[in-house]
Amino acid sequence: MNALGRHLLLELNGCNPLRLDDLDLVRRLMLTSAREVGATIMGDTFHRFQPHGVSGVVVIAESHLSVHTWPEHAYAAVDIFSCSVSFRPEAAARILVEGLDSARPSLLIVERGTTPPASFQPVPREELQGQRV
Amino acid sequence: MNALGRHLLLELNGCNPLRLDDLDLVRRLMLTSAREVGATIMGDTFHRFQPHGVSGVVVIAESHLSVHTWPEHAYAAVDIFSCSVSFRPEAAARILVEGLDSARPSLLIVERGTTPPASFQPVPREELQGQRV
Repeated sequence: MNALGRHLLLELNGCNPLRLDDLDLVRRLMLTSAREVGATIMGDTFHRFQPHGVSGVVVIAESHLSVHTWPEHAYAAVDIFSCSVSFRPEAAARILVEGLDSARPSLLIVERGTTPPASFQPVPREELQGQRV
Repeated sequence: MNALGRHLLLELNGCNPLRLDDLDLVRRLMLTSAREVGATIMGDTFHRFQPHGVSGVVVIAESHLSVHTWPEHAYAAVDIFSCSVSFRPEAAARILVEGLDSARPSLLIVERGTTPPASFQPVPREELQGQRV
């Protein structure tokens, strides 16, 4: 089968720590980026941790967006998983990179739901020890 | 910095299509796998799509688990993102592989929140075109 989903893994380094610790701002940014690219929002759940850090996920009809922030490292891990050709995950990524003011974004794209690419390792069910990248 | 998170990407092929289309079963399985490995559940959101397929995310204090199913392809994309050393994402993965009865699971492990591994590509903010794996 062809790829069913397109999964962007974003490592956002050099972010603005105050923004990363602001639950309302992070949530608004995630919902805005989903809406701006035409995604249909089905639900979301966000939390702020003590002493710092925000986690949240937006489930969209076209899959999901997630964020986990570490203000103390000026770092956020963002995932954008899209199974729609009408939705450009790169556009959502750009909004998040700018909104969190990341000076050093980096990106890995994984095609999901195809014959697993060579970087994936078939594993016996009892022995889930995958290859690292 | 050392890795802050451990992200398992699971491609579950050859699953039981009836299970993949059962919202209650998929949600219960995801919550069970989170609890069984000692994760603290903060919230969850699940949806069933027409004509088929289930999407859902569990936000945990230790990050998140997500699932997207394509019963028509006997396929599920599962992600388990953990930022706790006390939580073994492989154990959660095993529960999901067995619960969805995947005959051909494959796995990619990505360390998150470290100096990005070589497979990640630094990108100018305006030009988010990452490397594919």
